[in-house]
Amino acid sequence: VRLMRRVVSTGAPLARFYSSEVRKVTIIPGDGIGPEISAAVQKIFAAAKVPIEWESVDVTPVRGPDGQFGIPQAAIDSVNKNKVGLKGPLMTPVGKGHRSLNLALRKELNLYANVRPCRSLEGYETLYENVDVVTIRENTEGEYSGIEHEIVDGVVQSIKLITEEASRRVAEFAFMYTKENGRHKVTAVHKANIMRMSDGLFLHCCREAAEKHPDVKFEEKYLDTVCLNMVQDPNQYDVLVMPNLYGDILSDMCAGLVGGLGLTPSGNIGLNGALFESVHGTAPDIAGQDKANPTALLLSGVMMLRHMNLNDYAERIQQACFDTIKEAKYRTGDLGGSAKCSEFTDEICRKV
Amino acid sequence: VRLMRRVVSTGAPLARFYSSEVRKVTIIPGDGIGPEISAAVQKIFAAAKVPIEWESVDVTPVRGPDGQFGIPQAAIDSVNKNKVGLKGPLMTPVGKGHRSLNLALRKELNLYANVRPCRSLEGYETLYENVDVVTIRENTEGEYSGIEHEIVDGVVQSIKLITEEASRRVAEFAFMYTKENGRHKVTAVHKANIMRMSDGLFLHCCREAAEKHPDVKFEEKYLDTVCLNMVQDPNQYDVLVMPNLYGDILSDMCAGLVGGLGLTPSGNIGLNGALFESVHGTAPDIAGQDKANPTALLLSGVMMLRHMNLNDYAERIQQACFDTIKEAKYRTGDLGGSAKCSEFTDEICRKV
Ligand SMILES: CC(C)[C@H](C(=O)O)[C@@H](O)C(=O)O
Ligand SMILES: CC(C)[C@H](C(=O)O)[C@@H](O)C(=O)O
Repeated sequence: VRLMRRVVSTGAPLARFYSSEVRKVTIIPGDGIGPEISAAVQKIFAAAKVPIEWESVDVTPVRGPDGQFGIPQAAIDSVNKNKVGLKGPLMTPVGKGHRSLNLALRKELNLYANVRPCRSLEGYETLYENVDVVTIRENTEGEYSGIEHEIVDGVVQSIKLITEEASRRVAEFAFMYTKENGRHKVTAVHKANIMRMSDGLFLHCCREAAEKHPDVKFEEKYLDTVCLNMVQDPNQYDVLVMPNLYGDILSDMCAGLVGGLGLTPSGNIGLNGALFESVHGTAPDIAGQDKANPTALLLSGVMMLRHMNLNDYAERIQQACFDTIKEAKYRTGDLGGSAKCSEFTDEICRKV
Repeated sequence: VRLMRRVVSTGAPLARFYSSEVRKVTIIPGDGIGPEISAAVQKIFAAAKVPIEWESVDVTPVRGPDGQFGIPQAAIDSVNKNKVGLKGPLMTPVGKGHRSLNLALRKELNLYANVRPCRSLEGYETLYENVDVVTIRENTEGEYSGIEHEIVDGVVQSIKLITEEASRRVAEFAFMYTKENGRHKVTAVHKANIMRMSDGLFLHCCREAAEKHPDVKFEEKYLDTVCLNMVQDPNQYDVLVMPNLYGDILSDMCAGLVGGLGLTPSGNIGLNGALFESVHGTAPDIAGQDKANPTALLLSGVMMLRHMNLNDYAERIQQACFDTIKEAKYRTGDLGGSAKCSEFTDEICRKV
């Protein structure tokens, strides 16, 4: 296997690896409906003859020296080795004070940019038409630093941590992503009117990146303003880049505009690898009943194929998925249909 | 003037002051379109014979010992004395690093709860029907603490400060508000899965308040989930209570659902007084042209009247405003009409 790491001009490696041979990809099926939807994606990829080999890893949480459950080292190692992974939803271990394993993976693998495209699906009606926005979320720090203290009884502080390094690389990533995907505008989303230093630093890094990419339009907007505009006219936005928490909020909101988390893909891009995941829950109520909708994970797989430069496969699978939803004959229950997961999957397989 | 302070059972004073005589109310006309819309509200109040006397105060910012522009003491004193004020939009002084005067007022007056009802206006169509939600935002701390440091070059921390005291009083306020307004459910909005200690404390205080008010339904939701649900089906929510920044975001988003900040009122409730304000901008582009829509400030005035127990006046003015918008003959430009601010105002005056 020949590996080539492409490094973008400014030194922010986009961590893409090309090869002319079959590559290994880590798959983390996940909990609840995870195994079903992962199997569906694998079936569709096989039908499309995608030249990859899956390496399935178990992430049953293991208890670490600190008493916290964590991701087994073997899973981390697999992604680090293969550089690319696809992941279903993970349950957070039950019990007080356990951390989300979804987050643990993002941190352990240093996946610094979380990319979530939200696009209206033709034929599936929501209140909004032709939505097509991408949120790019800083994925390693901000309000997710995990640093908190009780100063005195009843007085708590949480630290929002913003660094130049992390802000720069995600800002740079946003501009690169915008260009590579033929998009035209980056909106930096912030509250630097309130958090002058932290969001100010983030914004400063976005401005610097904008200067390096004069061919991409750039604007700055307050988070509250973006939220207001987004529900009135999402089409005024294109690619949006922002600190961690704002991305959590805005990406869910955008997903809501086009039908929810069951339909929107996501990718976590890092220095040494990338992990694509559906961000919906484990849906224990319908797990094992062949009712789940695999679309979010499938479209995450499509993002992964693009990341691996397997664009033709990506295009074919995406089109088959869109067409199946549009034709409406094999929609799953969440989309108002009565098809089983397997029926929906088989129809996509026929089409690819 | 006879003043009576009502104290709610748990010791959180709602700061309402009743009297059988004419009372003084502070008015801060504000900048840009502020003077026009304030004059409109005063005219309508006069037409409705509301038994109040306005005390207009100037808030041209004065430079304090720290070089920062601030609110003149006379304005603060006026609100503190009258206990009730109405305020148009204020410009933030131009120049690097100046603080928002809107925020300064909230802080100086210790206005701990920011109440923003968002209701669909009959006859004015948006994508959403029958929206009727109220966001209640902690107004004094959280991400708005103003505490930030650069730790080393390129590494900044902002402190989100959550105290039991502030969380308790806003949680208690939310339940009291819900009951007094004949509403039925309080949703606590949080990210305690991430900010376990700070949002955890906030949530804990909400749970405690919920226990004291078993007649009000209570639920807890993640902020991202609320954002997603809100754009799909806002009617699943009623009253929402949350830390400062989340309220900033969610209230703007809800305003977007019903037509924007030009249509939604707001009130800042404190221990010693309350200030009602429109939260839209100063709109310098149309200032002085008799084009502005005074609805947000007028409905803020209506909230103020309810707060002062002048419910009949509140009801009449609100109905006249709603009817005028519904009939559509005198709509201002922002609502697709061509009426002047003064024409819209005069029509409401005829109706009250
Ligand atoms: C599961 C949760 C910890 C996570 C987050 O807050 O980032 C989720 O909401 C997401 O957006 O991936
Ligand atoms: C003007 C700005 C500082 C303010 C805020 O962030 O609170 C505004 O957005 C609001 O909601 O009143």
